[in-house]
Amino acid sequence: MFAISPVNHEFDQQIQTNIDSKTKPLGALGELETLALQIAQVLGEVRPQIHRPAMLVFAADHGIAASGVSIAPSEVTTQMVYNFLRGGAAINVFCRQAGFTLEVIDCGIASPIVDEPELINQRLGAGTQPFHRESAMTLGAVKQGFAMAKERVAFHHGQGSNLLAFGEMGIGNTSSAAAIMAAMLNMDVAACVGRGTGIDAQVMARKQMLIEQALHLHRDQLTDPYGVLAAVGGFEIVQMTGAMLAAAEHKMLILVDGFIATAAALVAVAIAPAARDYMIFAHQSDERGHQLMLQHLKAKPLLSLGMRLGEGTGAALALPLVHAASGFYNEMASLQDLGIEI
Amino acid sequence: MFAISPVNHEFDQQIQTNIDSKTKPLGALGELETLALQIAQVLGEVRPQIHRPAMLVFAADHGIAASGVSIAPSEVTTQMVYNFLRGGAAINVFCRQAGFTLEVIDCGIASPIVDEPELINQRLGAGTQPFHRESAMTLGAVKQGFAMAKERVAFHHGQGSNLLAFGEMGIGNTSSAAAIMAAMLNMDVAACVGRGTGIDAQVMARKQMLIEQALHLHRDQLTDPYGVLAAVGGFEIVQMTGAMLAAAEHKMLILVDGFIATAAALVAVAIAPAARDYMIFAHQSDERGHQLMLQHLKAKPLLSLGMRLGEGTGAALALPLVHAASGFYNEMASLQDLGIEI
Repeated sequence: MFAISPVNHEFDQQIQTNIDSKTKPLGALGELETLALQIAQVLGEVRPQIHRPAMLVFAADHGIAASGVSIAPSEVTTQMVYNFLRGGAAINVFCRQAGFTLEVIDCGIASPIVDEPELINQRLGAGTQPFHRESAMTLGAVKQGFAMAKERVAFHHGQGSNLLAFGEMGIGNTSSAAAIMAAMLNMDVAACVGRGTGIDAQVMARKQMLIEQALHLHRDQLTDPYGVLAAVGGFEIVQMTGAMLAAAEHKMLILVDGFIATAAALVAVAIAPAARDYMIFAHQSDERGHQLMLQHLKAKPLLSLGMRLGEGTGAALALPLVHAASGFYNEMASLQDLGIEI
Repeated sequence: MFAISPVNHEFDQQIQTNIDSKTKPLGALGELETLALQIAQVLGEVRPQIHRPAMLVFAADHGIAASGVSIAPSEVTTQMVYNFLRGGAAINVFCRQAGFTLEVIDCGIASPIVDEPELINQRLGAGTQPFHRESAMTLGAVKQGFAMAKERVAFHHGQGSNLLAFGEMGIGNTSSAAAIMAAMLNMDVAACVGRGTGIDAQVMARKQMLIEQALHLHRDQLTDPYGVLAAVGGFEIVQMTGAMLAAAEHKMLILVDGFIATAAALVAVAIAPAARDYMIFAHQSDERGHQLMLQHLKAKPLLSLGMRLGEGTGAALALPLVHAASGFYNEMASLQDLGIEI
């Protein structure tokens, strides 16, 4: 289903020589040097530049939210989608500042929004089913979500984008992400469940219990990534996963946000391991399970600012560092230029 | 000598209410929220915006460099100043990207550079004396350096800047910074000395020994911050310190770079404790003593990218995060705007 090539390692030595020839001590730009190597592997070693970075924010509702696992009711998903469309959310501010093209995609919020031509309609339903009682969605919905996401990524590729970031909005979606993580990594739910955007101990205990119930209920279905997404996924998480795979197919850089986006990345890499090398991890969130997923993916995010908002905010804030990496690689003078020998 | 007012705490509650009213869960923007509070305290709570951010890079040579404590000879200081003037260094790239006005100041490199009108002349000499044998400079030079820095900061204040960052270039200056740190914090030299831009174990042992020798030699002079700067400082570190104090006098935000800049900040705060609250710490460098100085200053830098370059590069990379903090504070919708109750 996905034709993802490994990133190009043919020029690794040339790229590293270029990095080492810059007017700085060897390795002095730390993680930006690793990042420059990755950018050049993905985009090509001759002046790799980020073009038209685009942030796709996927929104959807979750059946599990009705069981009180979040600080806010499902209605807030829709209210925040309106906020995105009006430009008033954190992701709007950070995208404007960073130069991200921002697009909001309805993957299945509770009720459709009409008369908002800017909102992209990729609805898979009116929210998922409560996954502690039945499958969140059908396998058909997963496949359909992947197909829609693929089409959307192709559109942005056609517009000239070579870096995509993915954000999400969906009350209840940390429960879905934690369930995906527990299933994919075969881990105790307790290690995967966190405070979401700020729930208390009692709500957290209920969240953990419902996820354990769901994993038990769907245990025969959790043997492959598609089954996991159908059983405990969310419409926005499905489309994020599909979009990441499609972006890797197009050899685009993928800027991965926080907990929810990393759960999607986990599934994408399970489906196509070659996708991993297209991913840049943006922000280490405060969410408990995030570090464990990052360890599994051998990822060290660029930022660690104690944020727990989602929307793609971590990815938006990391974009200047991606520009900095390609910038030093393209624009710095070499030691030879200066006649310096270090 | 310095008239530094405490930052304004009169509107703290109003500022916090503004932050908490934004369309996000309480505290969900993590360290950016703390930063927004600080920015509003310094610049005023009504739409605090960063204007004309300016990066002042101070360059100077160090007598101690002739004793082989660095990976490169003193000539490299001058070569890198030329690189700054030609736009080819990392700091040039990062300042262009971040929107920093960049200025390079000769505080006392080995030989004056002529016919470079862009280079600001604030020379205190032709490099410091080797501080393991005699005082790096006179107390008069320290005072003169403070006065020159103050004038330069006043110029940028007059141009409309309300945020200044300070970078440095000076082969040997991690030795000076480590000596300042050991003297100011009364710490073992071993805890303060690091690899600089990449020296080996043997060079590091010599560096440590020479600093210990210097601290013993000047022990009677190390009882106040001015004495410390005269004994083991550098012309660029002196001017950075003075510039930080002057910036705080003008109620400007101070973006503090890595190890060397933090040593200057340590001295500035010892001279005028009120200056601390104007400082935003940009990057946790790999240099060994940096974390200890940051602990002393109760500072948690915004970035930790494993860099060890200096020049102000960490500060340049952190500027987008400062914009993000003032941006969300000024531009995000409030929960009331959306009719959301969380």
